[in-house]
Amino acid sequence: MRELMYEGKAKRVYKTETDGELILSYKDDATAFNGQKKEVFQGKGRFNNLITAHVFEALTKVGIRHHFIETLNDTEQKVYQTEIIPLEVVVRNQASYTLEKRLGIKEGTAFDPPLVEWFYKNDALNDPLINDQHAQLLMDVNSVELSFIKEAALKINAALIDFFKQINVKLIDFKIEFGRLLNGDIILSDEISPDTCRLVDLTTDEHLDKDVFRQGTGDILTVYQKILTRLEELS
Amino acid sequence: MRELMYEGKAKRVYKTETDGELILSYKDDATAFNGQKKEVFQGKGRFNNLITAHVFEALTKVGIRHHFIETLNDTEQKVYQTEIIPLEVVVRNQASYTLEKRLGIKEGTAFDPPLVEWFYKNDALNDPLINDQHAQLLMDVNSVELSFIKEAALKINAALIDFFKQINVKLIDFKIEFGRLLNGDIILSDEISPDTCRLVDLTTDEHLDKDVFRQGTGDILTVYQKILTRLEELS
Repeated sequence: MRELMYEGKAKRVYKTETDGELILSYKDDATAFNGQKKEVFQGKGRFNNLITAHVFEALTKVGIRHHFIETLNDTEQKVYQTEIIPLEVVVRNQASYTLEKRLGIKEGTAFDPPLVEWFYKNDALNDPLINDQHAQLLMDVNSVELSFIKEAALKINAALIDFFKQINVKLIDFKIEFGRLLNGDIILSDEISPDTCRLVDLTTDEHLDKDVFRQGTGDILTVYQKILTRLEELS
Repeated sequence: MRELMYEGKAKRVYKTETDGELILSYKDDATAFNGQKKEVFQGKGRFNNLITAHVFEALTKVGIRHHFIETLNDTEQKVYQTEIIPLEVVVRNQASYTLEKRLGIKEGTAFDPPLVEWFYKNDALNDPLINDQHAQLLMDVNSVELSFIKEAALKINAALIDFFKQINVKLIDFKIEFGRLLNGDIILSDEISPDTCRLVDLTTDEHLDKDVFRQGTGDILTVYQKILTRLEELS
């Protein structure tokens, strides 16, 4: 019987027999608006597990360090153990409706350079936007590390734009998290999936991401399947 | 009959016969929580007009450029015309209850260096917190100017701490605004008063600022009078 270390909204984390390695088990739960909207979609965990694996493998090829080791089965993957930094790093190539609502920047406005935002990962506080000084006050991270994270996020963005273009998808924005290895190094952690990215079909403009659930405009399993199928055809 | 240029929540702005100079007329209105709480306190406009004059005169002595020219009467002052940059610059020496509510940093926590925050001055959006990139997207200001504004805000903070200490008052935090002169230079504008600063008596710990109105814990006219009386005794 393996030991559950942590359960989040979308994943469970288990210990392995190997020090420094963990198992991520993707759940079928979909949540939005900080857990206010919630539903279970059988098969969603599999999609996010397999899509994340494709994405991390692509990032390996362009020299980006991350926690992913290997896919174990349909819903589980082995990763290096990191201590997650409670910083949600959002990179935006284009304004979403959420940004328009918050700042009045019209949906669809392109950002060049991409817009990078920090949010404090804290459900009780509703993940508030923060600046560099807040991050240093709220978590164990210094200004040099924040610069490193920002650079890494922009490099990951460039790599993901190219990667998704190959499957005829435009990357609007995404959220990533970083974690600290036992030796102190900061690497990309968590998942990269249609749960954490806004992905739009380049031809039809349809959303192939969690917005179809958030906004009730489509079937989450159908659109996640499209992303996975295209990735499988690519490799 | 002079021409009204603009009316805000706390002040009216009039044209003068001289190009590049305006009259600020302080109103008796007190508002809080983005105008949701509102009351009129006869005499409040006079306090803020005269207190702001004392503060700007003190800032002149330490070489900080600002828009204040002279006091005209109990509720009015002459200022240089600037185009206000819609950036609310908040400097915090200590966490207030509002910061605790937003970020979970315990009220009273001291900040060294002081915490500087930008808010987008926009009532319809409820003055959201922003970062440097947002500021450059939302208003006519570049990264060098943002660095200048941050440096100026910290210099103003240091000067205000010393100034208020002379009247036995601790500066918890404050909000300032900057404006652009017709020649493009950015200088301190708006007001600096108990409406825009959190000021606490060093001996009794009582708030001598708008928090007594926001929180309903005291009489705004009584505490503003205390600040003005101490400033008049100082000069």
